[in-house]
Amino acid sequence: MPRSDNRESAFWPERVTVDGKEVRTAFRVRYAETDQMGLAYYANYLVWFEVMRGDFMRALGVPYTELEAQGYYLPIIEAQVRYAAPARYDDAIEVVARIKKVGSRSVTFVYRVEREGKPLATGWTVHCPMGKNGKPRAFSRELLSRLRPLTDEG
Amino acid sequence: MPRSDNRESAFWPERVTVDGKEVRTAFRVRYAETDQMGLAYYANYLVWFEVMRGDFMRALGVPYTELEAQGYYLPIIEAQVRYAAPARYDDAIEVVARIKKVGSRSVTFVYRVEREGKPLATGWTVHCPMGKNGKPRAFSRELLSRLRPLTDEG
Amino acid sequence: MPRSDNRESAFWPERVTVDGKEVRTAFRVRYAETDQMGLAYYANYLVWFEVMRGDFMRALGVPYTELEAQGYYLPIIEAQVRYAAPARYDDAIEVVARIKKVGSRSVTFVYRVEREGKPLATGWTVHCPMGKNGKPRAFSRELLSRLRPLTDEG
Amino acid sequence: MPRSDNRESAFWPERVTVDGKEVRTAFRVRYAETDQMGLAYYANYLVWFEVMRGDFMRALGVPYTELEAQGYYLPIIEAQVRYAAPARYDDAIEVVARIKKVGSRSVTFVYRVEREGKPLATGWTVHCPMGKNGKPRAFSRELLSRLRPLTDEG
Repeated sequence: MPRSDNRESAFWPERVTVDGKEVRTAFRVRYAETDQMGLAYYANYLVWFEVMRGDFMRALGVPYTELEAQGYYLPIIEAQVRYAAPARYDDAIEVVARIKKVGSRSVTFVYRVEREGKPLATGWTVHCPMGKNGKPRAFSRELLSRLRPLTDEG
Repeated sequence: MPRSDNRESAFWPERVTVDGKEVRTAFRVRYAETDQMGLAYYANYLVWFEVMRGDFMRALGVPYTELEAQGYYLPIIEAQVRYAAPARYDDAIEVVARIKKVGSRSVTFVYRVEREGKPLATGWTVHCPMGKNGKPRAFSRELLSRLRPLTDEG
Repeated sequence: MPRSDNRESAFWPERVTVDGKEVRTAFRVRYAETDQMGLAYYANYLVWFEVMRGDFMRALGVPYTELEAQGYYLPIIEAQVRYAAPARYDDAIEVVARIKKVGSRSVTFVYRVEREGKPLATGWTVHCPMGKNGKPRAFSRELLSRLRPLTDEG
Repeated sequence: MPRSDNRESAFWPERVTVDGKEVRTAFRVRYAETDQMGLAYYANYLVWFEVMRGDFMRALGVPYTELEAQGYYLPIIEAQVRYAAPARYDDAIEVVARIKKVGSRSVTFVYRVEREGKPLATGWTVHCPMGKNGKPRAFSRELLSRLRPLTDEG
């Protein structure tokens, strides 16, 4: 998996870096994402995890758009977040993710949200690949062979 | 157009009322919709307008889901909001809407957001009907004949 | 705890019912809440849980706005969702919640999302009361005495 | 106003460039921002405008966080969007903004959303500076002297 370089093209706007089996992406907390407590609203962490997954798959060379073009969707069947410290407007946060495990019928991502190296939250999501017809659809061998090396066991 | 009764069914959860050419719906500002100013974030008014349109079309007897099943989408080509006074968390707000004008190729909704009868915002959206192929698709005569009587001229 | 009656006032727009220790609220999936899979986006379930908590506390006679006025915030320290079946645009869904446990320093809500009685998702959130200064602040005895009878042990 | 350099620090994650009186920022459409039409939901353009304003003020050397620390809020009193062509998931879009006019009591931003140089939408927002007490509060001379040179007349 090549190290991503986000400096070459106006069309690679995000800052994504790959370090071994971890992918890291950075962005700022939006005003829209705050609530009247003055903190980032808790549901947005799931949005950030999804931004991360998009960046992850792109860094892996299998952009999620391509996955959908191949007829795969990755609906979530389970999601968990533990919130350790709040994120605030304009904070430059980083989300780090890796694939914990993958099989032909499910994939588990784990996430860490950081600000200046300090953990803000952790979480995971479990996805089951689905075809366009809404029915389960096993990952192809080719996809599995790309995803497996990224897991802890791979 | 029959007056909507939202009390009969657990599956008509919203409070929608029809008064002449105006439809009115009520709901509360969500915590997720606030920002760190302690006010409802400005983009949410467009979400509320969309909730209103869904309630409007349902009250008219042409639920938006049915419209889409008939192959019509109603993408927005223009939207405006004027914010007069802020809405806050848990405020019971009401959105009132009517159709300002409709032709075979566009429809304009106007909106008023109120709290206890006091105006909070006004706005309008212009939509051009589109087919599933993403191309413009004129409203059928049947749809037009239902929408026209609701306009100021109708 | 009195059974809520949402029919008396334009300012009680939601449909909330109380049944023993469970509170139930109903609303429709918004267009804004769908994604290009054609399903309700997964983060919105956490928004719905928060709508539920607001309705829950109001039904209990301790509206969340009042809690904040008393200087309590209820930030989330853990959240989990299990997604069993997708929700779609305009679905009239119901969220049912109860308090699983409560102590002076934390409260756990559990949730069930249903459509026509069929479960769509389950989840829970853990909250730690916080003062306006951002520091932990134990629930007052008075608040605890209202919340405890609602738990499984209560 | 110095040209922003987003490559030096992990804590300047966005790609912001300044060209004369225009500021430009780039990011990708999130999955959360799509709807079941398969397009970016229309309210998100107002969110993107706000991201743009944050980047604009930071590029100008007056981060919005600092503005709030000085006791200024910038609530929106009017917003308009014209949608020319749809944005889709994962599109790398660019938002370009400038200040159309500024006075001690209001500021107008204009925006252009582009994808690969092709316009997707245009819009504007009008803001009235407000103090922490929720009352109008005129921009200080110092702030005005920074903002004025950026306008068409400046």
